[in-house]
Amino acid sequence: MTHLDTPSANPPELPLALTMGEPAGIGGEIALKSWKLNPHPPGFFLVDDIARIESVRNEIGIDVPVRAIKSPEDATGVFPEALPVFPCPLSNAAKLGSPSSDTATSVIRSIELAVKFVTDGCAAAVVTNPIQKNVLYAAGFRFPGHTEFLAELAGVETPPVMMLACPGLRIVPVTIHVGLKEAIDALTADAIIEQTRILHQSLRRDFAISEPVIAVSGLNPHAGEDGAMGAEETTIIMPAIEALTREGIEVQGPYPPDTLFTQLSRETYDAAVCMYHDQALIPIKTLDFSGAVNVTLGLPIIRTSPDHGTATEIASKGIADPSSLVNAMDMARRMAANRAAFEAAKTP
Amino acid sequence: MTHLDTPSANPPELPLALTMGEPAGIGGEIALKSWKLNPHPPGFFLVDDIARIESVRNEIGIDVPVRAIKSPEDATGVFPEALPVFPCPLSNAAKLGSPSSDTATSVIRSIELAVKFVTDGCAAAVVTNPIQKNVLYAAGFRFPGHTEFLAELAGVETPPVMMLACPGLRIVPVTIHVGLKEAIDALTADAIIEQTRILHQSLRRDFAISEPVIAVSGLNPHAGEDGAMGAEETTIIMPAIEALTREGIEVQGPYPPDTLFTQLSRETYDAAVCMYHDQALIPIKTLDFSGAVNVTLGLPIIRTSPDHGTATEIASKGIADPSSLVNAMDMARRMAANRAAFEAAKTP
Repeated sequence: MTHLDTPSANPPELPLALTMGEPAGIGGEIALKSWKLNPHPPGFFLVDDIARIESVRNEIGIDVPVRAIKSPEDATGVFPEALPVFPCPLSNAAKLGSPSSDTATSVIRSIELAVKFVTDGCAAAVVTNPIQKNVLYAAGFRFPGHTEFLAELAGVETPPVMMLACPGLRIVPVTIHVGLKEAIDALTADAIIEQTRILHQSLRRDFAISEPVIAVSGLNPHAGEDGAMGAEETTIIMPAIEALTREGIEVQGPYPPDTLFTQLSRETYDAAVCMYHDQALIPIKTLDFSGAVNVTLGLPIIRTSPDHGTATEIASKGIADPSSLVNAMDMARRMAANRAAFEAAKTP
Repeated sequence: MTHLDTPSANPPELPLALTMGEPAGIGGEIALKSWKLNPHPPGFFLVDDIARIESVRNEIGIDVPVRAIKSPEDATGVFPEALPVFPCPLSNAAKLGSPSSDTATSVIRSIELAVKFVTDGCAAAVVTNPIQKNVLYAAGFRFPGHTEFLAELAGVETPPVMMLACPGLRIVPVTIHVGLKEAIDALTADAIIEQTRILHQSLRRDFAISEPVIAVSGLNPHAGEDGAMGAEETTIIMPAIEALTREGIEVQGPYPPDTLFTQLSRETYDAAVCMYHDQALIPIKTLDFSGAVNVTLGLPIIRTSPDHGTATEIASKGIADPSSLVNAMDMARRMAANRAAFEAAKTP
């Protein structure tokens, strides 16, 4: 078990493709700030409207040169001098702080382009800026979020898995955006098994952990205390753990949820599988709100994103914190390098 | 709003009464270690079997003098020289690591004595060592835990409220030791209102916070997102908040559970009311596992306890960490001083 991501000896030479995200939000600002923090190649390029990025830069007053590129291949050469922007023109003007469905087609197009660049081998990974789902829905977007849209673009049938990671903790919530009661009703051994398999494969391939140790949380207080406080540990979680163990995956649990995230506990596993949204998100946000990264596992491409929203309420103030985006890009780079090394080692 | 407990100018002169707890667990060891860390009066006295404490001391090898006292009044004089022990003889011999119902009557008697000493004005507060509930049940103990037994001893009809506190965070779970699905079914506006009232009164009286700010968590991810992910925020939690606000209590929420415990959020309230066990216990244990203190609110006496169990598996190893007990005693002392000052200020 290694808890840190082993850095690859051969970093990838391809840049990352960063999407526009909601143009009324902080995406442009944190992209500009991220370039300024580390303008070293291969870096990243933004798939965005060049005029709107210049406008964000001027409105907020960030001293960053931006330059349109004609192809992703130009990004690495441009990156030391300016933030490279692959043009994805806005269908209508955007205004910081005022999300509108008028720009939805461009927001979606930016995601499609970024995925295409990675699939075509011109970019190492997709990093997505936050989107404003309600304005996309109003424009006819029919996916619950990024993850499902990316699965469709990538032609994946098994639902991808959401992982959140910060230094010292990686967690996967088995159920996500449903009410708590509905989440309990939706919990199945199959869902735990399927997601843990994808997690296990990704820890080996993308995080360079040769023998991952995965902790599985209980659902109930004290993990049910032998059935005294809820039966799901016995009827759902234990059978899933037993099935995964038979497959040779090292899974342990079900653990009492309240002590699974103490410092001592965190050192004993590489990732924790959690039974519902807040069981996973409370500990990681309590530990490291600004630095957590959202990673989608189970896609043929690598995709990460900052673990925050569009923050439109502060979008014109210049105070957005780029930490989570910087961490998301660092993680995407390490994952791409690890995956390349993993695949190379498999080739005879 | 003040987030730190204001220390009283006049510390109480009465010692604390510390119960025996499960004699097969770490209670004796952490009591001895706590004395050694700070042998300054008024200190505390242990309500325990003197021979068994000497035996724990010798078995573990902690260099602490112990001395039997005839009355709690002798404790303060003895404390600088030895750990004072008010005799509560064991009905049968105890063995570290092997809990037995043979000692249950003595464990219960120690709690009764400690409560009596506080009620009689001979001790400032009760601090309880952890008990092993299953061996007490086997001996006929009919209370779910300490809290309910203390309520019965104190003649209180409204159920007391459990608070957990560590530096920078105080939390109250509205439901405790029931399965998660049952906890959701048991959630009512009345329960939230009743417990928040007791919390508010205690923050003023025992924590010297003249105008407490209380944050109330949602139940569902993102606090239900306007009903998209669960209705309990609208049907149960909001009506409770509105009723409390009409009473003049400053309550805010319902907040998304996953961002309620970030450092920035924690600075905005004096205590958080949580909807279920792990929503409250995950953040506090993730932040500060060894230092958290369990406080019972709504009793006529002050009672705190360390936030851990009997730890019988390490009871003879000498490695138990007394931090939580030390913090529990510090908090009991501050609460007693604050309550005395609060009551004195009310007297014309």
